[in-house]
Amino acid sequence: MEGKEEDVRVGANKFSERQPIGTAAQGDDKDYKEPPPAPLFEPGELSSWSFYRAGIAEFIATFLFLYVSVLTVMGVVRADSKCSTVGIQGIAWAFGGMIFALVYCTAGISGGHINPAVTFGLFLARKLSLTRAVFYMVMQCLGAICGAGVVKGFEKSKYDTLGGGANVVNAGYTKGDGLGAEIVGTFVLVYTVFSATDAKRNARDSHVPILAPLPIGFAVFLVHLATIPVTGTGINPARSLGAAIIYNKDHAWDDHVSHQLGFSTSFFPFPFLLVNSQ
Amino acid sequence: MEGKEEDVRVGANKFSERQPIGTAAQGDDKDYKEPPPAPLFEPGELSSWSFYRAGIAEFIATFLFLYVSVLTVMGVVRADSKCSTVGIQGIAWAFGGMIFALVYCTAGISGGHINPAVTFGLFLARKLSLTRAVFYMVMQCLGAICGAGVVKGFEKSKYDTLGGGANVVNAGYTKGDGLGAEIVGTFVLVYTVFSATDAKRNARDSHVPILAPLPIGFAVFLVHLATIPVTGTGINPARSLGAAIIYNKDHAWDDHVSHQLGFSTSFFPFPFLLVNSQ
Amino acid sequence: MEGKEEDVRVGANKFSERQPIGTAAQGDDKDYKEPPPAPLFEPGELSSWSFYRAGIAEFIATFLFLYVSVLTVMGVVRADSKCSTVGIQGIAWAFGGMIFALVYCTAGISGGHINPAVTFGLFLARKLSLTRAVFYMVMQCLGAICGAGVVKGFEKSKYDTLGGGANVVNAGYTKGDGLGAEIVGTFVLVYTVFSATDAKRNARDSHVPILAPLPIGFAVFLVHLATIPVTGTGINPARSLGAAIIYNKDHAWDDHVSHQLGFSTSFFPFPFLLVNSQ
Amino acid sequence: MEGKEEDVRVGANKFSERQPIGTAAQGDDKDYKEPPPAPLFEPGELSSWSFYRAGIAEFIATFLFLYVSVLTVMGVVRADSKCSTVGIQGIAWAFGGMIFALVYCTAGISGGHINPAVTFGLFLARKLSLTRAVFYMVMQCLGAICGAGVVKGFEKSKYDTLGGGANVVNAGYTKGDGLGAEIVGTFVLVYTVFSATDAKRNARDSHVPILAPLPIGFAVFLVHLATIPVTGTGINPARSLGAAIIYNKDHAWDDHVSHQLGFSTSFFPFPFLLVNSQ
Repeated sequence: MEGKEEDVRVGANKFSERQPIGTAAQGDDKDYKEPPPAPLFEPGELSSWSFYRAGIAEFIATFLFLYVSVLTVMGVVRADSKCSTVGIQGIAWAFGGMIFALVYCTAGISGGHINPAVTFGLFLARKLSLTRAVFYMVMQCLGAICGAGVVKGFEKSKYDTLGGGANVVNAGYTKGDGLGAEIVGTFVLVYTVFSATDAKRNARDSHVPILAPLPIGFAVFLVHLATIPVTGTGINPARSLGAAIIYNKDHAWDDHVSHQLGFSTSFFPFPFLLVNSQ
Repeated sequence: MEGKEEDVRVGANKFSERQPIGTAAQGDDKDYKEPPPAPLFEPGELSSWSFYRAGIAEFIATFLFLYVSVLTVMGVVRADSKCSTVGIQGIAWAFGGMIFALVYCTAGISGGHINPAVTFGLFLARKLSLTRAVFYMVMQCLGAICGAGVVKGFEKSKYDTLGGGANVVNAGYTKGDGLGAEIVGTFVLVYTVFSATDAKRNARDSHVPILAPLPIGFAVFLVHLATIPVTGTGINPARSLGAAIIYNKDHAWDDHVSHQLGFSTSFFPFPFLLVNSQ
Repeated sequence: MEGKEEDVRVGANKFSERQPIGTAAQGDDKDYKEPPPAPLFEPGELSSWSFYRAGIAEFIATFLFLYVSVLTVMGVVRADSKCSTVGIQGIAWAFGGMIFALVYCTAGISGGHINPAVTFGLFLARKLSLTRAVFYMVMQCLGAICGAGVVKGFEKSKYDTLGGGANVVNAGYTKGDGLGAEIVGTFVLVYTVFSATDAKRNARDSHVPILAPLPIGFAVFLVHLATIPVTGTGINPARSLGAAIIYNKDHAWDDHVSHQLGFSTSFFPFPFLLVNSQ
Repeated sequence: MEGKEEDVRVGANKFSERQPIGTAAQGDDKDYKEPPPAPLFEPGELSSWSFYRAGIAEFIATFLFLYVSVLTVMGVVRADSKCSTVGIQGIAWAFGGMIFALVYCTAGISGGHINPAVTFGLFLARKLSLTRAVFYMVMQCLGAICGAGVVKGFEKSKYDTLGGGANVVNAGYTKGDGLGAEIVGTFVLVYTVFSATDAKRNARDSHVPILAPLPIGFAVFLVHLATIPVTGTGINPARSLGAAIIYNKDHAWDDHVSHQLGFSTSFFPFPFLLVNSQ
């Protein structure tokens, strides 16, 4: 009963822990034990079906993600008047909504990453082995390339003239602006994912495990609302890579390098984040 | 307690099962027993009230679904400027939102299919008997025809000139494109439904049974965002049939055949899906 | 455990009950007892603080509902270009979203009706006493009038020229069309409310009590998407009355009669609904 | 079991408590004990890591909130045609959606205020100490200034010409209108926050603790839908202050005073609210 009432105080003060500064947060929730960090290499994984099943799930999810989102982008750009399309806001919904639905679908199989940046972040936090992280990223990139390729098959010649859903830094912004926007955007996404998957916090807040896929999808939606006018939003390196490979124009490739840089640099704020999320 | 903590690790690694490749997933969750497949014919059903109640619920749900969505479509197409309407995005919300609300309303009575493709998919997975599957599909088609008919009653002469919400392959796309778009779109929907209703996964993930109607509705919304510019989105065969019968123009009928084909072929990826969703 | 697994089969077959046709659904869930119908007059209520607190909550909720929604409508109609406003879709979000948030806020105090049609429907199902039903409806209408009045205070002279958010049957539709649209629209709302508040179903489906305010709000949003082009959507008699009183033009009053008629006739399908929702 | 069934009657009558008028609501739920009010000064807090961690979380959350929302505003205003942007509705989503995601992320660490008005309201209700309230507000304002500053860095010279996302009373409205709109808007937000965090109500309604961040985010979204045409919506004093400091034009400062006045006066309805929310 006591614990139940503690659970429900969302939004009110939940700060009863009183340990001196510096000893950090470990150990203050006595009924919760941090799981040991995942080993770098786990030989047993490679011979288990669940390992490959997880990779297949990441492939399918990234494939469907690229397919729906790039097809939505093409539908908007090919129209003469934006008013007779779902509009830029509709594009943001397509990206965010797909992440919501796909995280929901694959969370129980692969963990629902669908984004190399998320996989990399969770690897840095030692939530999964290096073998698995690399396998996921490869499957995500393959899925993204296939997804963008199928859309190109539908749109044919128009695909190239319309930009192919690839990310470019828009007029009026420097590459530095684009890079900065990608760094903060990726931070927003990874921050939300860590909040949703922090097992320790989940044990305290009853709403966290249940709503989890929703704020993750919303984070993607919101970053798109903000940065589509800047770079088209490339917080998902697999999505940027897939669209750039299929589109394959020098212009998109140049900017793609910025995105990948943004991806790498987006992990600078990481140590701080980890401390904070304890 | 152990199980509780396991429950909340959404998004993190959930892949502790380690059985050798090939023996598949059966039996790895010891506390979960797969229910036996539904029999093809279940004579007892025909004399139970809950069987007919379920059929009535499917009829009402499909009726309301067609009514709200087709009326929204008519409101958009009859306006001179799309800007003074809810827009194409509003149409996508009408389809996806109705599915969310109606799955929520009827889940406890009929299972909340509202779509022959979903009923057929669940039948293939032996979740319901053939008798029930056929009864549901008939009720869904009747409901769809009535729903579209009521809208025609409101819109009168304008209904025919404005296309009647029927699905046609838009200019710039071949029939093959439309067929392909319908296949992938139906796959997205059925994949989400299976994820939401997989009893085994539900037992592990605390968010799955609670949010279930939301990602299903979102999947419908997202597929509409992507494929309205291609075919008007016909992933619900009852909706396509109802609109085509009431509209009744050669043009719509021709394209309707593609949709039904898309519906049939959308079950090719099925065996793979079933393996993956274990 | 058994019950737990039963709980999670959302969307799959939940139709194990097998009683012969005609004996109806009573008694098939042995662990659930239907509460006795509320008495028509409950003298004790009038001297309890919770009775008046509930009325105050209905007043505040309807006030805020009218204030936000009518102000949103005014913001859209006063602009020259709909593109520089939140658009018609934004109006639909304002109505649906307010109902979601307000049902959430007041569910624990008054039951979160905010709509005389909902209060009347729940009274017909004997979920609350006549005294309470009348008190709620009066408070709802007062709240609606105050809410529309405050917006008129902000908008001043423009209020009258812009229509004041009152409901009128739009050009191209007959009064009969408007009436029909209101009947079906109110049916969608009341059907969703009954699904969300049916205590028997709630005991079976784990997602019903938790998501409850969300599908109710969505139902309001969807009906607005569909019927704003027809009548401006008057499924909430208090909202129609409040806007009509403050606007006070013959034109709006004439049409308001249709709405109230729609409200009354929307209870014809009721007996059927009650049987179906068992 | 009894309690379980009581839990699920959302929307139906939940008014069984029958105490005479005047003795107020204390003591009617026997299994719930109101926690004692937080002390004004709690010396122990200042030497606990969780105190500073909470402040850092408020800083990051307000920083990300301003960054995403102001960047979205800039993306809309810099475009020639609103139709080729996410539109005003997209701006409302950016504000509301960020609050949803950030309340979700920080609820377990700091309580997820992200708004000095919310912190002040919870302080008045003695849910947190004066020390903590002041610390939160300072961190929120610093975060807001940094967030708006980063956007200015991206947008450079355009930032000043485009208004910098600062709040001004729009043409056609008096300062009194703007003040009134802010008062009611802040009331909607604080009312929703109190409903979501009222521990007593949470103990009764199963949906309250789980959905909590969603209606709070929706309340922000809805107030923006309604009052963006009036003042640009300044219900978050930190957001108004941050944008005004970075923009730094006399025009915005003049109007900012109204907002802050609105903020102060928005607490007049407070005593009433507290009684009602019991």
